[in-house]
Amino acid sequence: MPKFAVIGAGNGGMAMAAHLALKGHEVNLFNRTFDKLIPIQEQGGIYLEGLVEGYGPLEIVTSDIRQAIRDVDVIMVTVPAVGHRDIAQMCAPYLQDGQIIVLNPGRTGGALEFSQTLYEYGVNARITVAEASTFIYACRKTGPCSARIFDIKKSVEIAALPSVRTGLVLDALKEVYPQFVPAESVLETSFNNIGAIFHPAPTLLNAARIETTGGAFEYYIEGISPSIAKIIQRMDDERMAVAKMLNVKCMSALEWMRVSYGVEADDLYSAIQQNKGYKGIKAPSNTDTRYIFEDVPYSLVPISAFGRMAGVPTPTIDAIIDLACTVSGVDYRACGRTISKLGIDDMSMYEIYTYVYFGDIRRGVVA
Amino acid sequence: MPKFAVIGAGNGGMAMAAHLALKGHEVNLFNRTFDKLIPIQEQGGIYLEGLVEGYGPLEIVTSDIRQAIRDVDVIMVTVPAVGHRDIAQMCAPYLQDGQIIVLNPGRTGGALEFSQTLYEYGVNARITVAEASTFIYACRKTGPCSARIFDIKKSVEIAALPSVRTGLVLDALKEVYPQFVPAESVLETSFNNIGAIFHPAPTLLNAARIETTGGAFEYYIEGISPSIAKIIQRMDDERMAVAKMLNVKCMSALEWMRVSYGVEADDLYSAIQQNKGYKGIKAPSNTDTRYIFEDVPYSLVPISAFGRMAGVPTPTIDAIIDLACTVSGVDYRACGRTISKLGIDDMSMYEIYTYVYFGDIRRGVVA
Repeated sequence: MPKFAVIGAGNGGMAMAAHLALKGHEVNLFNRTFDKLIPIQEQGGIYLEGLVEGYGPLEIVTSDIRQAIRDVDVIMVTVPAVGHRDIAQMCAPYLQDGQIIVLNPGRTGGALEFSQTLYEYGVNARITVAEASTFIYACRKTGPCSARIFDIKKSVEIAALPSVRTGLVLDALKEVYPQFVPAESVLETSFNNIGAIFHPAPTLLNAARIETTGGAFEYYIEGISPSIAKIIQRMDDERMAVAKMLNVKCMSALEWMRVSYGVEADDLYSAIQQNKGYKGIKAPSNTDTRYIFEDVPYSLVPISAFGRMAGVPTPTIDAIIDLACTVSGVDYRACGRTISKLGIDDMSMYEIYTYVYFGDIRRGVVA
Repeated sequence: MPKFAVIGAGNGGMAMAAHLALKGHEVNLFNRTFDKLIPIQEQGGIYLEGLVEGYGPLEIVTSDIRQAIRDVDVIMVTVPAVGHRDIAQMCAPYLQDGQIIVLNPGRTGGALEFSQTLYEYGVNARITVAEASTFIYACRKTGPCSARIFDIKKSVEIAALPSVRTGLVLDALKEVYPQFVPAESVLETSFNNIGAIFHPAPTLLNAARIETTGGAFEYYIEGISPSIAKIIQRMDDERMAVAKMLNVKCMSALEWMRVSYGVEADDLYSAIQQNKGYKGIKAPSNTDTRYIFEDVPYSLVPISAFGRMAGVPTPTIDAIIDLACTVSGVDYRACGRTISKLGIDDMSMYEIYTYVYFGDIRRGVVA
């Protein structure tokens, strides 16, 4: 029975840690700031409500990464993508042979960036980095020591870097998460990142409405009008074109709406309007939101960067990145996931495939 | 006393024709479609209300451009910029030596495009094309034969192509429009096109709100929130940078707010919020608006094109152009005012200055 460390005690991390513990696993919970952990440490565990109910007792609750990951089999990272590089850097000195790290989710290029960071910090341990295409739970923290699971997804793609180790990761997780299914590679999980399409553009293109109403409107139903749907469709076409040029299997947003919500429609606008799951979801209350500061640098920037590498123009994605930089006052192209941060800037397409599927000799991770 | 032809019987053309006639000038009124003209032709003139009151009797009311412009001294073009090229083409065979054409306003590159079109259609007559930086009236058509003038601007810049003929244009108009003041060149009137900044971006960045409310919100006060103000400020910085590289005197949007409305503020957001003149102005009712289909191809596209020529990047302006193309399904870069349509694609910067200030030997318009 694998032993887990859950990294991050936000909405997702709390639900995941409690659920794993409830299933009988030994679980350590880590959070960078300790304040959040005090009540959990005192309590000794987390109460779950909703779809899963019960009490999950935790082993170690700590802000010391060394303690948190020592002798665990699987490290489940639940922090936002903006924290992946930091977490990699913190873990680097303490990783042990055979450990598996799973990014829940990786956004675009998460496993690549994480591995590159470990490489930069001289990690020699034989570890496996994997990424999920989305977070498996719909959940919310409900108190200092409690969380609610609204839903658990039926199927979530996962891939290891390199792909030849995906089976090993699935095997370690199969008992607790039978929902994980293998993707061909981390390029597939990275490109099937639908948040890249549904988050930054509708937020930016409703920025004035968000700022003058505090987000008091229906994010999907009212925020994605016919014109906005045209823009996100164009972005989706660009994402698909880049994926195709990289020979990556990728689902269109329209197809994803069908598969995820059972919505049959001819265009994105109709699909969104028909999706009952989107009813009642309000817009973010301001523009300082993960829809911008996470999805732009960790989803759109790497898609655009892959596009440039593959010679596929992404003008609409680039327009949204530029507007986001102006609104946030942040150079997301510089601080986001560039090809160089993914560690593939000096590789040919052939070398990238080799790396992603079989491993890179430089990193000592050849299968 | 100069004789006028007014081209276009929309809000602006009706007010201008009536006002000129009321001042005792002979005035012909032209409109491409005749339907609009039938009641005016039957009536014989146009009633004015508002700031100026009275009846303006017209000479010829016609859809025949040849009749409309024959033997007039000044041709006042009031059609939107999207019609400038058509009007030039229609006038070309019938222009007479000494005639003055004024674009009210030219947007960006109006006089250049108009002249280039006349050149392409083989005009040999010694005519002068000029452009105003904005429309002199705030007015509205109020009935089939009536219009209301709300306000007449105190000062409007005008320039002829080439600049050495600006005095001649001012002289012809001085009695009826003492408000016209000389700009250095048509590059100045073209770059002082503030609609480029205030129209497309706030419309696009409120597209969903426009489409779900029919424009039922305050265009400036609610539509230009802090994030939107940051974006239009960036666009304005890009416009100013291109103008500076072209050595064109240009007013920032913030400075323009001060000069036009007496608003003293440190930033655009505050200036707009403080401007009482913007209170009550609603958004367009849909995205098929001149704020997009006129201001993108005839204002933003030429500013971007000048930027490329001058080596000044305009990423924010380009982002807005790209989004507008997607929303409208129109390639505004192709159909808008490119450097080639302005007739300056094969010119060096020195040749452009020479052309704009003194005339171009090829066109036979050397001063």
